[in-house]
Amino acid sequence: MKVCRRETFNAAHRLFNAHWSDEKNMEVFGKCSNPNFHGHNYVLETWIDGEIDEETGYVIDLKKLKDLIRDEISERFDHRNLNLDCVEFEKLKPSAENIAFVIWNILREKLDAKYGLSVRLWETENNVVEYSGQ
Amino acid sequence: MKVCRRETFNAAHRLFNAHWSDEKNMEVFGKCSNPNFHGHNYVLETWIDGEIDEETGYVIDLKKLKDLIRDEISERFDHRNLNLDCVEFEKLKPSAENIAFVIWNILREKLDAKYGLSVRLWETENNVVEYSGQ
Amino acid sequence: MKVCRRETFNAAHRLFNAHWSDEKNMEVFGKCSNPNFHGHNYVLETWIDGEIDEETGYVIDLKKLKDLIRDEISERFDHRNLNLDCVEFEKLKPSAENIAFVIWNILREKLDAKYGLSVRLWETENNVVEYSGQ
Amino acid sequence: MKVCRRETFNAAHRLFNAHWSDEKNMEVFGKCSNPNFHGHNYVLETWIDGEIDEETGYVIDLKKLKDLIRDEISERFDHRNLNLDCVEFEKLKPSAENIAFVIWNILREKLDAKYGLSVRLWETENNVVEYSGQ
Amino acid sequence: MKVCRRETFNAAHRLFNAHWSDEKNMEVFGKCSNPNFHGHNYVLETWIDGEIDEETGYVIDLKKLKDLIRDEISERFDHRNLNLDCVEFEKLKPSAENIAFVIWNILREKLDAKYGLSVRLWETENNVVEYSGQ
Amino acid sequence: MKVCRRETFNAAHRLFNAHWSDEKNMEVFGKCSNPNFHGHNYVLETWIDGEIDEETGYVIDLKKLKDLIRDEISERFDHRNLNLDCVEFEKLKPSAENIAFVIWNILREKLDAKYGLSVRLWETENNVVEYSGQ
Repeated sequence: MKVCRRETFNAAHRLFNAHWSDEKNMEVFGKCSNPNFHGHNYVLETWIDGEIDEETGYVIDLKKLKDLIRDEISERFDHRNLNLDCVEFEKLKPSAENIAFVIWNILREKLDAKYGLSVRLWETENNVVEYSGQ
Repeated sequence: MKVCRRETFNAAHRLFNAHWSDEKNMEVFGKCSNPNFHGHNYVLETWIDGEIDEETGYVIDLKKLKDLIRDEISERFDHRNLNLDCVEFEKLKPSAENIAFVIWNILREKLDAKYGLSVRLWETENNVVEYSGQ
Repeated sequence: MKVCRRETFNAAHRLFNAHWSDEKNMEVFGKCSNPNFHGHNYVLETWIDGEIDEETGYVIDLKKLKDLIRDEISERFDHRNLNLDCVEFEKLKPSAENIAFVIWNILREKLDAKYGLSVRLWETENNVVEYSGQ
Repeated sequence: MKVCRRETFNAAHRLFNAHWSDEKNMEVFGKCSNPNFHGHNYVLETWIDGEIDEETGYVIDLKKLKDLIRDEISERFDHRNLNLDCVEFEKLKPSAENIAFVIWNILREKLDAKYGLSVRLWETENNVVEYSGQ
Repeated sequence: MKVCRRETFNAAHRLFNAHWSDEKNMEVFGKCSNPNFHGHNYVLETWIDGEIDEETGYVIDLKKLKDLIRDEISERFDHRNLNLDCVEFEKLKPSAENIAFVIWNILREKLDAKYGLSVRLWETENNVVEYSGQ
Repeated sequence: MKVCRRETFNAAHRLFNAHWSDEKNMEVFGKCSNPNFHGHNYVLETWIDGEIDEETGYVIDLKKLKDLIRDEISERFDHRNLNLDCVEFEKLKPSAENIAFVIWNILREKLDAKYGLSVRLWETENNVVEYSGQ
């Protein structure tokens, strides 16, 4: 049985590779490498896989999952500049793929090992990524 | 090849554990345990897995699947109080997880064994569950 | 300039007219009159009409509007039975139209008179009502 | 790590089996077999499975995937009559299942073998199919 | 007080002007003029303006409005070719604007004069029209 | 008759008042005033009011409106930092209200005077503004 909580956060970011020239960055990342950043409304689905608890009828209390996402993800990334404000992206490019990877690792550490975990992240209404661990 | 039909139904429910005190029910279920019930617009996705029939181009006729969902699910649960009106939840708490479990079992019995079956159920726009059999 | 905050709440209700027979209630309201209630995820759009404040760039601070909706609307109606728990519907049928009418009047009284007010309420994804005062 | 690009195209089609009588076609396909065609706004999700490239943070450049979908899928099917204009459906009924099957095969051939591929196709907001290869 | 019912229908159409050359049609209408038609999932919002009936709490019974839309609009246009099958578009180009105009006139004639009427029609998720009478 | 084209753009911004202390900015704008910016996926609806042209069936060619929005709005604001990159917001705070005001004025100047114009701008899925001129 899988259960999911959907949350959103808004952040600024920029994609560029410090080892490349400006020309190469523009060629590969296009306007996503604009030096003054742009931003997105990120939509995060957190999927938990587990057994139903007979006493509650829940796999996990979604209010507690909501609080966990607020404390661990929204507090870190909401209304932030991912490149400048977030230590997680000091060396990692804040592509949607890497943001999902980082979120999965943060939540994985906080969740009971009995649960499976998968995250799905919309960067725009047309671009989505999904990560479930390797 | 998987195909899906999306349908909706509206129902009242309440989460509480009859073996617990009111305090414990409120602590665990919060406002979901309010004694006079609340309700949801449930959105149900029914996913069928099978082979394409060459004569029709269909895995399954989605009009027939729609009729099956109407006869077996909507007739049972639409505009009902899950706790008071539905024998399926006499002993089972009508959490989203358990509703999905019950729906899956009802549909599984009615569907040809050649088909795989998975159900996804939105309780709100932010809370979703998915069940595919154990 | 108009600005809008979108919020949701979940409630149980039942439509019936105490002056009518059960037959007439069933004839007019159909399954919406089922005695044990059903429920909905209501989606509420609150639209405010006013001038932009030069110092903030805001017509109204949407965080304050959000708090107002939480305190005045969600606290009253979220996870409630509109028929049994809410004094506002003791004599008024909790149809979507009347719920919108009640919400408009509650918010109108709390909002500065300089603002125009309109509310839009989705009862399901296919049924919507809108009220802007007479 | 999976990434997805969502695109849309609009097309006319008709479902019928040339080996069947008009009566049988109407019985099986209903109004979907109306002789003068009807149409849909198809929504296509293209999911790619692969490793994150360290230099870009991308599994695949979604702008390139977008261009590939435009060149190979939209150019072929957008604003077309699938039955009359598209060689792919000369012998294959243009059911959602078969359209997804055809799209998967077109994209599979164009994509680097290191990538996994899955396509999800909405024919209406209530009917969806998904194909990931056999 | 305004109330709305949302319904959908699927149809094929083509935009072209019989008094123009093929070149001019292609120049003005582009791929919308492809000779073998294309199609859309149309989403129709029907908005009714009126007083709340005290006995029911309704402006209009949305089940009756739903039936009216089914009988008068869906029966006419769903799974049809607007150019070939529908007398309403024999002389009128089936642009979204004209389809909304035709629907408004059909419903206006069937609705009690005490009601105001407005229709909103989505042709795609990005193109919408709205008509409320002149 | 009104017609609408929906487009999106992604931008970074920050709300703050240069005449205020950091404390007052934080008190009024909260995390929206974070110094390193955050961002949004803005959704813009451009509504045009006019007569149907008999030769085309169009109020306005939505492809031309789409091109106008791309040239005048997306080119200016997409993947930009509204505070740092856009001369329009040198002296004006880039609140949703002011962005809608600026967009309306840009489009108003480019549109034939025979058309009415209204813009609706979503900053998040819960915050929307609308401007139709004074």
